[in-house]
Amino acid sequence: MRATTIHAARDIRLTEAPDPEIARPTDAVVKITAGCICGSDLWPYRGENATNPGDTIGHECIGVVQEVGSEVTAFRPGDSVIVPFDHCDNTCVHCRAGMQSGCVNLGFTVTGQAEYALVTQADGSLVRVEDGFDDDLLASYLTLSDVLPTGWHAAVSAGVQPGDTVVVIGDGAVGLCGVLAASTLGAERVIAMSRHEPRQEIARAFGATHVVAERGREAGAAVKEITQGVGADAVLECVGTDSAIQTAFAVARPGSMVGFVGAPHGVELPVGRMFVRNVGLRGGMAPVRKYLPDLLERVRSGSINPGLVFDSTRPLAEVADGYRDMDERRAIKVLLRP
Amino acid sequence: MRATTIHAARDIRLTEAPDPEIARPTDAVVKITAGCICGSDLWPYRGENATNPGDTIGHECIGVVQEVGSEVTAFRPGDSVIVPFDHCDNTCVHCRAGMQSGCVNLGFTVTGQAEYALVTQADGSLVRVEDGFDDDLLASYLTLSDVLPTGWHAAVSAGVQPGDTVVVIGDGAVGLCGVLAASTLGAERVIAMSRHEPRQEIARAFGATHVVAERGREAGAAVKEITQGVGADAVLECVGTDSAIQTAFAVARPGSMVGFVGAPHGVELPVGRMFVRNVGLRGGMAPVRKYLPDLLERVRSGSINPGLVFDSTRPLAEVADGYRDMDERRAIKVLLRP
Repeated sequence: MRATTIHAARDIRLTEAPDPEIARPTDAVVKITAGCICGSDLWPYRGENATNPGDTIGHECIGVVQEVGSEVTAFRPGDSVIVPFDHCDNTCVHCRAGMQSGCVNLGFTVTGQAEYALVTQADGSLVRVEDGFDDDLLASYLTLSDVLPTGWHAAVSAGVQPGDTVVVIGDGAVGLCGVLAASTLGAERVIAMSRHEPRQEIARAFGATHVVAERGREAGAAVKEITQGVGADAVLECVGTDSAIQTAFAVARPGSMVGFVGAPHGVELPVGRMFVRNVGLRGGMAPVRKYLPDLLERVRSGSINPGLVFDSTRPLAEVADGYRDMDERRAIKVLLRP
Repeated sequence: MRATTIHAARDIRLTEAPDPEIARPTDAVVKITAGCICGSDLWPYRGENATNPGDTIGHECIGVVQEVGSEVTAFRPGDSVIVPFDHCDNTCVHCRAGMQSGCVNLGFTVTGQAEYALVTQADGSLVRVEDGFDDDLLASYLTLSDVLPTGWHAAVSAGVQPGDTVVVIGDGAVGLCGVLAASTLGAERVIAMSRHEPRQEIARAFGATHVVAERGREAGAAVKEITQGVGADAVLECVGTDSAIQTAFAVARPGSMVGFVGAPHGVELPVGRMFVRNVGLRGGMAPVRKYLPDLLERVRSGSINPGLVFDSTRPLAEVADGYRDMDERRAIKVLLRP
């Protein structure tokens, strides 16, 4: 099949790779209807995560079941499915506690920007879209693979409550989905940090009541002004850099929580400040499967429209251009059609 | 008055100091019935916190109101009161949100090992003990000034729920009160980490179902065995050293929370591990006033007996011996009678 591979920093290619095969009886192979590029793919793209030349890349996709292993009972070829980037059996002690990203049989999609993807623990991982992918909802369904549940996880981890004032740091697709999550969960004020007008627009469409374009100390001052000196009841950190984390703690009110979902790169947590101000930190890799039934229903009913984060669609052959667009912030998120 | 002062590492003296005076109309002066030495006093005692020669030391006490400022309306001379180590107005935006340790008018007891203490924001801070201090309950009342609410705050911050398996790190008075808090909040299994038999005994009296004497990696392995490989639902970190924090995260199950109340000294938080395992951290200086009405009622009714943490009582004149006993772990916690 054709699959996206990375060969060095900024060297993304569409190459021929072996078709995924059922290796375990709990596996399934999914023919990809749509995949996409994730903000976290930019870490290896920029050379900030180690890779081996020729590694496949891409972990977000939706598609149609092609083949299932002998122990897969809940799905059959032809089913339209959401593929969580993190696979889980959904039955182990951690899954039952709602932390599917800590599953004892954890697996990952590794060919999400390709023609086919292998899904381990198919019965536990996949969620069916009963009537197939409506074209109008395709982009929103695709966000269910990672970016929407990840933004949602930031809001849940930060403990967003109805009436809260929430700050969202990061205006990538995850941050924007964090805005959507916070407002959907009932936040009264949602303050999006963004300097980019197209992203600000989506943030507002997703429920942001305020946009702060400042950075660093000025950003903290702006939030303090909006909140009359109190600070935020909950902060969603959707970047993963040290400066984003420091800003998060600077705008959090005493007793609040920072929910973080940006894989940390070079972060030193301000433990003294956290202690003195009683500001907690919680989050990590999202338990996508946990949130899927609820989020799928919200997408299908049209009550939310997370697909707005896709501002570019390209054929898979142009995947390298898609990476370039996202790296240079000309695109927020690129949808790929095999 | 006679007050305890610190002059250098391990140089504790009882000296003559000016009597506290009402400086603001919201102040009160309390004649101390009983004070005590806190585990956190050992940081400056050991030279690990900076001090100025002659600084007073001690922040935990209970006593009788001696004098009140002109704006104090809820208390009058003669009232028996619990003095939270952290003073608050109990009306500001942070107090109303239940984070009194973030009060905009925050103050502290600075002569808790003395004859008198100044309490700022007396109306907000103090809690009356209606019928005075029953001798049998005196030690338990004294724990309400800091050590019991602090252990309680660790359990609340860690999100202890009925049925949980909880690990408590630290067998000082705060850790032991953490054990009491976890079991009182309904934890099914409470695993106390302690190598010291007298402390193990109190831990068991407070509801510990398991005691782990191992340290470091062995401690983690022991907890894993007790929890059948799952790890703890909640971890209370009541020490503040880096090794204690690392142990806390090592025994926490995915999706759980570490509640920390030991002032961090030399701690580097394992942010990568926290992210990958979705283990959060929350806590800090306890909002003592928040918990006091509930905890006072539990003490008064005899449903809990936190005073067991005091295994030594000395006249104030022997305060230096009390520090030595605690430093050398010959005493868990020393009660001082002026």
